[in-house]
Amino acid sequence: MLGRLNHVAIAVPNMEEAAAVYRDTLGAKVSEAVPQPDHGVTTVFVELENTKIELLEPLGDDSPILSYLKKNPKGGIHHVCYEVEDIMAARDQMREKGATITGTGEPKIGAHGKPVIFLHPKDFNGTLIELEQV
Amino acid sequence: MLGRLNHVAIAVPNMEEAAAVYRDTLGAKVSEAVPQPDHGVTTVFVELENTKIELLEPLGDDSPILSYLKKNPKGGIHHVCYEVEDIMAARDQMREKGATITGTGEPKIGAHGKPVIFLHPKDFNGTLIELEQV
Repeated sequence: MLGRLNHVAIAVPNMEEAAAVYRDTLGAKVSEAVPQPDHGVTTVFVELENTKIELLEPLGDDSPILSYLKKNPKGGIHHVCYEVEDIMAARDQMREKGATITGTGEPKIGAHGKPVIFLHPKDFNGTLIELEQV
Repeated sequence: MLGRLNHVAIAVPNMEEAAAVYRDTLGAKVSEAVPQPDHGVTTVFVELENTKIELLEPLGDDSPILSYLKKNPKGGIHHVCYEVEDIMAARDQMREKGATITGTGEPKIGAHGKPVIFLHPKDFNGTLIELEQV
């Protein structure tokens, strides 16, 4: 079922500093920062040859990454996102296998404008997994 | 400087269970388990279209992932590995930029038989970064 690794998401407390580290220290190609108020984050993409790193900074009081940053004040790897062909089929397969989908369990439109679900880390060795239909 | 994302490494407390989750629940192609006593881990690769996930289970009493699993008993994302063309040039660039290289600061031969360095998470938003010469 799993397709490409779409991105690795890294939560950061300060986007300006984080983007500078990837651009200046690591010498990577880094996008502009894009505020995404509907998703409670500001995003910057680090573009690699085969995939991308998505830096996430909290935006607003309800940001979904605030609790993570409270536990990990310096930031850290927040989730990995895999591509799937059919999000409803993926949802059904996850339910059938007994994996926990976060929230209502129904796909939502993610930060890339495509339907996504998130799988609870408790079923996947402590790893939060996003599945995105592409 | 950064090339491809070589792998995302996930520490797991039980390889048999973890490999089954990726193979049976997520439907991914999963390699055989390979004990790597020199590196204190047993590895399984989850093969994706564009990169791979490396599952790591502790092997022996000095395993470098034991302290991580003590803090995160269910496992979690341990590090990301980026490819570089020249590990000595990468080492020099990291030193020049003030980033901390773990251990002696000199490249070692990693689990894939290629020279690697690890960059301390404190300089990279809580993310442990491996650089591997390819």
